[in-house]
Amino acid sequence: MRILGIDPGSRRTGYGLIEATPQHNRYLSSGCIRLPESKSLAERLVLLGDALGDLIQQWQPDCGVVEEVFFAKHPRSALVLGHVRGVVLLELGRRQVRLHEYAPRQVKQSLVGTGGAQKEQIQHMVRMLLNLRSRPLQEDEADALAVSLTHAHILPLQQRLQRLP
Amino acid sequence: MRILGIDPGSRRTGYGLIEATPQHNRYLSSGCIRLPESKSLAERLVLLGDALGDLIQQWQPDCGVVEEVFFAKHPRSALVLGHVRGVVLLELGRRQVRLHEYAPRQVKQSLVGTGGAQKEQIQHMVRMLLNLRSRPLQEDEADALAVSLTHAHILPLQQRLQRLP
Repeated sequence: MRILGIDPGSRRTGYGLIEATPQHNRYLSSGCIRLPESKSLAERLVLLGDALGDLIQQWQPDCGVVEEVFFAKHPRSALVLGHVRGVVLLELGRRQVRLHEYAPRQVKQSLVGTGGAQKEQIQHMVRMLLNLRSRPLQEDEADALAVSLTHAHILPLQQRLQRLP
Repeated sequence: MRILGIDPGSRRTGYGLIEATPQHNRYLSSGCIRLPESKSLAERLVLLGDALGDLIQQWQPDCGVVEEVFFAKHPRSALVLGHVRGVVLLELGRRQVRLHEYAPRQVKQSLVGTGGAQKEQIQHMVRMLLNLRSRPLQEDEADALAVSLTHAHILPLQQRLQRLP
């Protein structure tokens, strides 16, 4: 199963693709879609939507994963993040890529074993689990790979639960 | 100039198209895109995006107008509204339809003459200005036509200001 993790942001949106098998999870690709601040929000959303569309086209992921957002400190930033997330959900939905969402605590729990893990611990675990010791990872990229890995970890448990009588 | 006003909402998104000439503003079309609550947010965003795309294709508006949002009472609703607005901005941007935004107070001021006008006054003025006395208008539809009319009213002033030495 090919998993596309996305970490949406109004300036930078990270993405991370992995191939998940029962044996192990393999790194495929990751990066950061940068949205120039000089452009209007509408223009940035178009750039983002096109870039995501190209990624989905190229890699044909089986599912997309993003972090759930429960609240934001400032309604204003929640609104802007919402715009970006809306475009992410639209692009996945239009290409029939099924969406999964996990709470930030679930991501931390799944990777580090505690819901209160630090950013650096997450980054460290992403590199360890995907054999990326020599590859520098940007923060948004690591976060996107982290949600991909979370889905890869949680999915087999869900499937096993569904098979219980 | 053909103006498409949009009133974004996570359940219902209103739209209102007018043709603005220096002489008068003519009603073209309006309606409400309903997004079934039974569907996931991603599915609703796809339905909305497709419906907006069809509208833009059919009517070829010169510009799109939405209300600015400065704050929302609840960060959660700001986030959801952001998703919907993101799709609206994306669909307009992808089809090179230029976006204009007005504050709610500007819309009220422009239509009723006071920034503190009630919903009913706005509805009344929309019907009067567009000769829609016999046509029942839904609230989101009327709001969408109101932002279209606001742009039609403010645009000539802006153009005249630009021509000043």
